[in-house]
Amino acid sequence: MQTGITPAQALHRVLEHTPVLGTETVSLRDCAGRILAESVVAGRALPPADNSAMDGYAVRTGDLADACEALPISLRVAFEIPAGVAPDREVGCGEAARILTGAPLPRGADAVVRQEDAERDGDRIRVASAPRPGEHVRRAGEDVLAGEEVLRPGVCLAPGHVGLLTSLGRGYVAVRQRPRVALVSGGDELVEPDGDPGGGRIVASNAYALAAQCREVGAEPLYLGIARDTPEEIERRLRAGLACDVLVSSAGVSVGDRDYVRAVLEKLGCRLLFWGVAMKPGYPLAFGRFGENGNGRGPLVFGLPGNPVSAMVTFEEFVRPALLHMMGHTHLYRPTLRVRLGETLRKAPGRMHFVRVVLAREGGEVVARSTGGQGSGLLRSMAEAQALLLFPAASTELREGEYATVQVLDASFLAADAPGF
Amino acid sequence: MQTGITPAQALHRVLEHTPVLGTETVSLRDCAGRILAESVVAGRALPPADNSAMDGYAVRTGDLADACEALPISLRVAFEIPAGVAPDREVGCGEAARILTGAPLPRGADAVVRQEDAERDGDRIRVASAPRPGEHVRRAGEDVLAGEEVLRPGVCLAPGHVGLLTSLGRGYVAVRQRPRVALVSGGDELVEPDGDPGGGRIVASNAYALAAQCREVGAEPLYLGIARDTPEEIERRLRAGLACDVLVSSAGVSVGDRDYVRAVLEKLGCRLLFWGVAMKPGYPLAFGRFGENGNGRGPLVFGLPGNPVSAMVTFEEFVRPALLHMMGHTHLYRPTLRVRLGETLRKAPGRMHFVRVVLAREGGEVVARSTGGQGSGLLRSMAEAQALLLFPAASTELREGEYATVQVLDASFLAADAPGF
Repeated sequence: MQTGITPAQALHRVLEHTPVLGTETVSLRDCAGRILAESVVAGRALPPADNSAMDGYAVRTGDLADACEALPISLRVAFEIPAGVAPDREVGCGEAARILTGAPLPRGADAVVRQEDAERDGDRIRVASAPRPGEHVRRAGEDVLAGEEVLRPGVCLAPGHVGLLTSLGRGYVAVRQRPRVALVSGGDELVEPDGDPGGGRIVASNAYALAAQCREVGAEPLYLGIARDTPEEIERRLRAGLACDVLVSSAGVSVGDRDYVRAVLEKLGCRLLFWGVAMKPGYPLAFGRFGENGNGRGPLVFGLPGNPVSAMVTFEEFVRPALLHMMGHTHLYRPTLRVRLGETLRKAPGRMHFVRVVLAREGGEVVARSTGGQGSGLLRSMAEAQALLLFPAASTELREGEYATVQVLDASFLAADAPGF
Repeated sequence: MQTGITPAQALHRVLEHTPVLGTETVSLRDCAGRILAESVVAGRALPPADNSAMDGYAVRTGDLADACEALPISLRVAFEIPAGVAPDREVGCGEAARILTGAPLPRGADAVVRQEDAERDGDRIRVASAPRPGEHVRRAGEDVLAGEEVLRPGVCLAPGHVGLLTSLGRGYVAVRQRPRVALVSGGDELVEPDGDPGGGRIVASNAYALAAQCREVGAEPLYLGIARDTPEEIERRLRAGLACDVLVSSAGVSVGDRDYVRAVLEKLGCRLLFWGVAMKPGYPLAFGRFGENGNGRGPLVFGLPGNPVSAMVTFEEFVRPALLHMMGHTHLYRPTLRVRLGETLRKAPGRMHFVRVVLAREGGEVVARSTGGQGSGLLRSMAEAQALLLFPAASTELREGEYATVQVLDASFLAADAPGF
C-alpha cells in the first residue's frame, strides 16, 4: 500500500481502479442527464412524410410557372386536407388543395403557396408568383432518415435528445447505471440529527452532506447509519454495504486507538491501495477495492477523514470523479479558473492545500478571498465556499495580487447576469 | 396586447409579471439545490463543547510551562475520556487525562499534547515541550455561536449547507416552492409516442422535451395530453391546468384556421400581454396571465410555437428564466461566451436568430459552427446544439472569423479537462 502520495497520484490510482458500470433501461421521462448506452437507429423517417410548412395551398408548380403580377393564374381549390389525415385524392392539372401546417402533401402537388400569397375567391385562388418546386414543403426524412444512426453511446442525454427520441417513437432507452453509494459514519460520540448533542456528543452530519454530494452528480446514496467503535459493529455495518458499487466510510481509517475500519476492511477482503494523501484538509484518506480475485465484484472503498470539511473535500476531489466515470461521463472535473488572490495566504510546505474561497468579479478579473478560518472542523467555511483554491504543495506563500487556480463549486458563479441579447 | 416586440422586450415583460412563489418545508434530504426561504439561527454552538483536535493527553499548561528537551516534565495519567461521554472528573495539578479526537476537554485542562509528543510509561507521561493554552483544542462555538444567524433567505442550498444544518440538528427547512407547469399539446395530427405515425400523423414530442426542460431547472411538469383542434377540447384541457403555476401550450396560438387556443384563453380570463416576438425560431410566441383582478391567482401562460425547435428555444429564452425566478433564484441565465465564428452565417434583417451551434476550443479561443440546417422542424440539430448563437436582428451576415455571443446550453463544455492539480 502506498502512503503520503500526491493528490494527482491518488486521483490516478482511484480512476485506474474505477469501472464503468453496466446498463439499465429507463423511461424517457427519467433519461435526461444520463449517459446513453446504446446506438439509436431511427425506426422511421422524420418527418415521416412530405408535409406543409405553412397554412396555404398545395399546388403543382408546373401550373404556375408563368404566374406573375400582371398575369396571375387561377386554380380551383378541389379539396381540403385536414391535419393528421393522409389525403386520398390527387391534385390534378389546374387544381390546388387547401392545406394546413403539418398536413401531408397530396399526390400531384410539389409545393405550397402560403395563404397570404394567394387571393381566395369562392372555390378558386389566384396566384401572382411562381413557386419553386419544394417551396414551403418539409421533405420526408429531411431531419432523420429511417435506418440512420441518430445517437451514439456515450451521449449525455439533454432535453433535445428526449424530443428526438420521442419523435422516433422510443419510450425507453438504455443508459449507464447510477452508482449506489453506501455511507457509514463511525464514532461513539456521534448522534443522529434528532439526537441529544449534550455530554460531548456531536451530530453525525457527514453522511448527510456526503449524501447530498452523491445526489448532486446523480448517484444513489444509501445511509447505513452510525457504527460504534467496536470491530464487530463496524464489520456489521460495512457488510451491509458490500452489495453497493461504492462504500464510503467517514472516520475510522486513521491511526487512533479506535480506528478499526482498516482492519475490518482487510478482514472482509478489501485490498487497500493507498492511505494518506499529501493534502490539507484530508490527509488521512484511504482507498481500496474488493474483488480483484478475478470476479470483479464488490465495491470501491473510500475511507474518508472524520472532520466534516476533510470528508467533503476528499469526496469532491476523489469520490466525485470516480462516480461520474462509473456513470459513463467523460467530463469528470469542475470548471477551473485562474484567479487573482485578494489576500495573502501562507502555509507550511509539503502538502497541497485546498483553500475554501469566495469569488468576486473585479475589473475584468476574478478575485478569490478565503472564507476565513480553514480548520477542518469549520463546516460553515465549507458551506460558504464558492471554490477551492489550489495552494501548491511546495509553496509557502501566495501573495495578494498573484494568480492561482480555483475549482468552481458554485455553478451559479458562471451564470451570466443577462441573457446576451 | 403588444406584437412584434424584441426578445429583450419580451423577456422584460415576462419577468415583470412573474411572481416569486411561496414557501414549503422540506426534509434536509431534499433541500439541495433549493432556495432557502427562512433565516436560520443556530440553536446550539458548533462545536457544542471544547474538544480535542487530536488523540493525546489533556493537560494544564501551567504544569508544563518549564518543560524542555533537557528537562521533560512527568504527569500522571489520572483517567481516560471516552468519545461521546462528558468527563465527570477534573484534571488536577500534575495530572493529565487520556483523550481521543473529538472527545470533550475535561475541567482543569486547557490544552492537548499529541500522543506523538508524549512519552508514555505505565500510568505516566513525559512531555518535553511546553504547549500553548488552547493548543490542539477546538473551542466551543469556534465555527458557530448559539443564537447566531448562520444562513439567510435566498441562499441556494449546497451540500455544505446540508452538513451545517444537520450539525445544528435541523431536519427540515423552509424553501421556495417549485413551480408546477401544465403542458398541453395541440393538433389533430398528433399522436402519443406509442401511437401510429402513419397517414400524416406525427408524435407529440414537444411536451416530452419541454417536460425535460422543466425538470432540468427543478420545476414539476404536469402533462395534460393532446388537445384536438376544437374549442371545446382545448378549453377542457386548459381548464385542467388552471391550478398550476404556469400553463404552457405548444401549438395553437398562431393565426391559422385551427388556432383556437388564444380565443379560449381569453374566454377563460387570461389577459394576453404580447403575441409575436422578432426572433427565429419562435416568432409566434404568446404570453399572458390570469388573475390580475386583484386576487393574484391563476397561472402565467406561455403559448409556444408548435415546431419542435421553436418550442424548445422559446422555452429556453423565456419560460426557463421565469421558472428560476419563481423558485427564488437570482441567477436566471445560462453562461455566455464570446466566440469566433467558424463559418459565415447569413440571414434576412429584422429578427434576431438563435443559431444552434457546436463549440470547439481552438488556439485558446472558442469557435462556433452551425449544427447544420436551421429549419424549426429539425429537432436533431437542436439535440446536437451545445449553445445558441445570438445573430442580431439588424445583421445580415456574420463572417467567418468575426466574434459573437453564445448562450452555453451544454454545461459539460465548461468542465475542465483536468482537476487543476
